[in-house]
Amino acid sequence: MTFTTQRKVRFQHCDPAGIVFYPRYYEMLNSVVEDYFAEVVGHDFHHMHVASRTGVPTARIETDFHAPSRLGETLTFELAIRDVSRTSLTLRIVAYCNTQPRLTCDSTLVFVDLESGHPLPWPDAMRRHFDHDIT
Amino acid sequence: MTFTTQRKVRFQHCDPAGIVFYPRYYEMLNSVVEDYFAEVVGHDFHHMHVASRTGVPTARIETDFHAPSRLGETLTFELAIRDVSRTSLTLRIVAYCNTQPRLTCDSTLVFVDLESGHPLPWPDAMRRHFDHDIT
Amino acid sequence: MTFTTQRKVRFQHCDPAGIVFYPRYYEMLNSVVEDYFAEVVGHDFHHMHVASRTGVPTARIETDFHAPSRLGETLTFELAIRDVSRTSLTLRIVAYCNTQPRLTCDSTLVFVDLESGHPLPWPDAMRRHFDHDIT
Amino acid sequence: MTFTTQRKVRFQHCDPAGIVFYPRYYEMLNSVVEDYFAEVVGHDFHHMHVASRTGVPTARIETDFHAPSRLGETLTFELAIRDVSRTSLTLRIVAYCNTQPRLTCDSTLVFVDLESGHPLPWPDAMRRHFDHDIT
Repeated sequence: MTFTTQRKVRFQHCDPAGIVFYPRYYEMLNSVVEDYFAEVVGHDFHHMHVASRTGVPTARIETDFHAPSRLGETLTFELAIRDVSRTSLTLRIVAYCNTQPRLTCDSTLVFVDLESGHPLPWPDAMRRHFDHDIT
Repeated sequence: MTFTTQRKVRFQHCDPAGIVFYPRYYEMLNSVVEDYFAEVVGHDFHHMHVASRTGVPTARIETDFHAPSRLGETLTFELAIRDVSRTSLTLRIVAYCNTQPRLTCDSTLVFVDLESGHPLPWPDAMRRHFDHDIT
Repeated sequence: MTFTTQRKVRFQHCDPAGIVFYPRYYEMLNSVVEDYFAEVVGHDFHHMHVASRTGVPTARIETDFHAPSRLGETLTFELAIRDVSRTSLTLRIVAYCNTQPRLTCDSTLVFVDLESGHPLPWPDAMRRHFDHDIT
Repeated sequence: MTFTTQRKVRFQHCDPAGIVFYPRYYEMLNSVVEDYFAEVVGHDFHHMHVASRTGVPTARIETDFHAPSRLGETLTFELAIRDVSRTSLTLRIVAYCNTQPRLTCDSTLVFVDLESGHPLPWPDAMRRHFDHDIT
């Protein structure tokens, strides 16, 4: 299963070269993960951070930027679950403009207790979604 | 040769978990590359973008986040040149708080013509610095 | 006439106090103006900046923050045109969460030539929209 | 007394017009207030937010942008205390490049309890600094 969502390239994302400044892509990528957790897994970041005092910090991320993106374009982000362990999750997100790939991003998130910073096993309700969505 | 500079973890870098939100690290990392080009290579980003209409977009970047960073900490960034080709440059940047590593980032930049987006060979004056600084 | 659009409060907008960090509101406010120009005035920022080398920098802005906004909330932004002169535009944007006002922002934009930085008279096609939308 | 500090205009601050995107000025302005609290008042934001669970959200801010700032410039920020009440503080910050004013910003901060969001009276140790620094 692939989770798909779109983002518009806005003025705030673009640099003096008129293209997306790459740190801004990470804000988009994080918001795509946020939507996946809220809409598919059913655990939104507000609930996670405030009610259950847990979080999903990124432990590792690698990105290939295939072509620049420009102001006004609409990007389609496709998120796929690649792997899941007791306490972590490995994702691939590919962003396209129409059919042209713009970036491929592989990342690993860890489920942690915000107070101690220690990894926690995924709750069954979340784990079930990851196992189901794995590709 | 290693280029070293520091950044303070500020309120604007931190998320609801009270730690640096990882997209903000990329703003710091980009500013470290900016300082290396201005202070060591002698080609500041203003000159590059405005006067010579060239840029150094990131083609590929991978980062391991070893431990979270907190508001008020001072991070030391060490940049090393790992490889240089006719049109690209491969860097490693490691960030520490005191002696504790916080992240290791490997990236490849490409020297491009801003109008066409095409790669350009590094000017000799820049290339000389990269060759000298390679580790 | 009021132009209305919505923004979700995301992780990237929130600070260690768990509320929107006020500089992030300005990214939202700028994107609301961006949508007004693209959807109502029919001059998107890409066309303006790239094709016609013009821009609409903010000359003055004042904001009252009535109540904090939290991760996961959806904010409704209402933009109204308050005044228009030969080269400038005065807007009021109010943001609500449900019926609770979160901020009121009054700003003045100036239409400029990007090369010289000098103010330009609004083209008739744009001016017509502002005159029509004034409240 | 005026508190003075400097910020470099970096690539991350600049927009497709090649000038500082105004929301980025607010990150700079917030960091200037952060430095004033840490260096002059002796209460850094980490201590405030984490140890004492208090914060200083902005209640009102107004800014005049006098002239654009460009990549590579160094801006000097001068912060002056204009007024202090039992629970709030009114500041003026003016930013210059050399002697050219770039912006004038008047803001009011409120000292709050982070749990309740309610205003708190300034502790005597902080209040003493504000009273001393008022201009």
